[in-house]
Amino acid sequence: MKEKIIVIGAGLSGLTAARELERKGFDVQIIEARDRVGGRNEAIVSKSKLKLEIGGQWIGANQTEMFKLCEEFGLQLYPTYNEGKNILFINGKVIKMGSQRGAIPKLNPFVLVDLDRAMKRVEKMAQSINLKKPWVHPKAKEWDGMSLEVWIRKNIYTKTAKAYFRIVAEAVFSAEASDFSFLHFLFYIKSGESLETLLSVEKGAQEYRIDGGTQQVSQKIAESLAAEIVYNVPVTKIEQTENEVTVYSNTQYWKAARVVVTLPPTLAGRITYVPQLPALRDQLTQRIPTGSVIKINVIYKEPFWRKDGLTGQVASFEGPVKVVFDNTPLISSLGVLVGFMEANDGRTATEWSEKQRKEATLKCLVKYFGEQALDYIEYIEKDWMKEDFSRGGYGGHFNTGVWTAYGEHLYQPFKRIHWAGTETSDIWNGYMEGAVRSGQRVANEIGMITPQEQLSFQS
Amino acid sequence: MKEKIIVIGAGLSGLTAARELERKGFDVQIIEARDRVGGRNEAIVSKSKLKLEIGGQWIGANQTEMFKLCEEFGLQLYPTYNEGKNILFINGKVIKMGSQRGAIPKLNPFVLVDLDRAMKRVEKMAQSINLKKPWVHPKAKEWDGMSLEVWIRKNIYTKTAKAYFRIVAEAVFSAEASDFSFLHFLFYIKSGESLETLLSVEKGAQEYRIDGGTQQVSQKIAESLAAEIVYNVPVTKIEQTENEVTVYSNTQYWKAARVVVTLPPTLAGRITYVPQLPALRDQLTQRIPTGSVIKINVIYKEPFWRKDGLTGQVASFEGPVKVVFDNTPLISSLGVLVGFMEANDGRTATEWSEKQRKEATLKCLVKYFGEQALDYIEYIEKDWMKEDFSRGGYGGHFNTGVWTAYGEHLYQPFKRIHWAGTETSDIWNGYMEGAVRSGQRVANEIGMITPQEQLSFQS
Repeated sequence: MKEKIIVIGAGLSGLTAARELERKGFDVQIIEARDRVGGRNEAIVSKSKLKLEIGGQWIGANQTEMFKLCEEFGLQLYPTYNEGKNILFINGKVIKMGSQRGAIPKLNPFVLVDLDRAMKRVEKMAQSINLKKPWVHPKAKEWDGMSLEVWIRKNIYTKTAKAYFRIVAEAVFSAEASDFSFLHFLFYIKSGESLETLLSVEKGAQEYRIDGGTQQVSQKIAESLAAEIVYNVPVTKIEQTENEVTVYSNTQYWKAARVVVTLPPTLAGRITYVPQLPALRDQLTQRIPTGSVIKINVIYKEPFWRKDGLTGQVASFEGPVKVVFDNTPLISSLGVLVGFMEANDGRTATEWSEKQRKEATLKCLVKYFGEQALDYIEYIEKDWMKEDFSRGGYGGHFNTGVWTAYGEHLYQPFKRIHWAGTETSDIWNGYMEGAVRSGQRVANEIGMITPQEQLSFQS
Repeated sequence: MKEKIIVIGAGLSGLTAARELERKGFDVQIIEARDRVGGRNEAIVSKSKLKLEIGGQWIGANQTEMFKLCEEFGLQLYPTYNEGKNILFINGKVIKMGSQRGAIPKLNPFVLVDLDRAMKRVEKMAQSINLKKPWVHPKAKEWDGMSLEVWIRKNIYTKTAKAYFRIVAEAVFSAEASDFSFLHFLFYIKSGESLETLLSVEKGAQEYRIDGGTQQVSQKIAESLAAEIVYNVPVTKIEQTENEVTVYSNTQYWKAARVVVTLPPTLAGRITYVPQLPALRDQLTQRIPTGSVIKINVIYKEPFWRKDGLTGQVASFEGPVKVVFDNTPLISSLGVLVGFMEANDGRTATEWSEKQRKEATLKCLVKYFGEQALDYIEYIEKDWMKEDFSRGGYGGHFNTGVWTAYGEHLYQPFKRIHWAGTETSDIWNGYMEGAVRSGQRVANEIGMITPQEQLSFQS
């Protein structure tokens, strides 16, 4: 008997869940709101014929499941360009620094000591978190009751080190340090191995790229599935009875034994549930907003910064584009810089015209790389806040108080509904790796339900 | 020419908006998800024939619009029972204290000095807030970047005074002090005149009750309207074109010139908008969750506590019922106590059985009032977290960082969509008074649109 499972969302978590469920003998159908697979992974072809990634793009460090998938599908990895110096832009000046992991910029020694001390303290606290239950930590209530910003103000002394930490928050969470709990910050760091791993290219989260783009992983999994994928159908309602679940769009419905919802919590909360969600699950979805990010690719006729001995990587104290990387594809004579407008920078810029954003971006790039940055071929932007089926990016962050009050309800099944998506992962939460792992977890969860548990789930 | 306006939600804000719009010559239709008017105001009749309020119930202080409505509709006000002593339950002991505004309990003098100092500091800071623009305050970023809990830990020294402040947070916001921004706390205090006003019966927010219940205000306004009210219809989609707006349920649709959405932000975000909401308005709805509260009425054959010289009012350091009031109707020989399970207490208790909640409630009441509390006639509870069209109560609170990043988008119209609801009010935000005022504000907003502005709204 092949039980039918519906998976909502054809991103990495949904596709992985589908794949693992098929391996276990289930009959799977996938329903996707967009006209494509990949969710927050998306590649486009520019006018100048470059395949560019406008969503999540890097893998690295111990993201083992992503590496396995790339190997399995014969996708070629190549290292993020990391030769030469990185730029730290501070007080209106370019400071060049090494690009190796753990490189230290030439800053005032007081700042360096302050930063080093803060980083070490954070790493140590992060390693003490139980990733499956962050709320059991003896200090969980205190850490969850304050934002990262509060910790910064209290524990970092120099203006520059404080500003640096705030940029870290923006770069990693697409949110201000004020916007999420310090416990969430620590959880996220350990979830991604370490803060240094999250921030690094060398042996870090930005280590590798996939030739042709990360969306291919989703495309390859989709091709390997027996499952039908229904596109262009936003799910509006999920109804459960004792024996089955019915998934509705505005015009159609489908029946199954169980359903996997892979949407980020804030979007999962927008579906109508009959019977309604348990109180705490619903309230959880009210409390994990999505970050704010606009991703910008600028194409040049060559990667001119490389000749100047630069990696193309920037961490800047001045916005709206504070984070830049070399985003040149593996084989191309052209050069590409990718920049991010994040958190308050993104929130301000989302209301501008494209022309204003382009001008602001170029102004930033000129400050970092000189007048050559004006001589671009194409400017391509993607505002994830405006994306109907994401309404923000990269992922969800936990407000103060949420982990300790609602953490247990992050992926506790509700009768025949199971929850996946990178926001539910204990390992590499918020990253592609977390999405894949959440898909594996939910498939195991469903696969392990015994006939007896079936009964208890139904009640 | 009578332009047609659709109002979504037949609570106090929607009904007030409808009424004011009709006065201005608009043709109004109201669409309500529930089978009744009143929203978070609801009265029921108990088995023992008592009319009981299971939602918002008190008015007082300078809530002028509510007083005017009661007068206009001939609703009789009566004072909340406030004769005798209040109970402060602390360290397992009952401490009796005066019930007049500003009464001081007999506590350790260090605690009293600490509390007094903290209250005065908070009041002073609150009075410096610009209610229409809390984000313009010189300290807005700092205050918005931290939770009330952080302020408590840093600025209050004695354990008892800290605990007291946390109970204040629970009682006023149905949320933990960790759950919302300190700037929001200050805004809310000034919005409701002062912290002392929010907490008081005498000249405070709990001063008066309405004979027969607050829901009558909504019923009376509804009766006075020409507008049709469509019940039992949850709105699922709002579509705008240049010239009109269409409001959809799962089975019907209605057209109008403009629409007023009165739902709390977290529920407003669950409607599908075509064209989609502006990025910052959508992200705002992701960041104002609703509080957590279970309201409990316990009926006795007489108000026995009165004979013991007690008001029935309790502030307790031990949950799950930390806040109690005498809730006896104006004319009845029976006695009623109302208690609240709020914030984490409510979140824990929502997963219990009714039997467990009843036992826990009685256990609390026995601690406060003695064994007589066991001799009840009826136990009646209302869990607002489980209420499909509220998903929490009393109202929404702003997470850290939200006022400063998103405050401007709280009620900025989106083309033909206008926003009301108590969460959008600058005065008495979160209260019935705020709901009424938001209805007035939105009607004025629509009434003042000139033909020229019409054009700019459309673009």
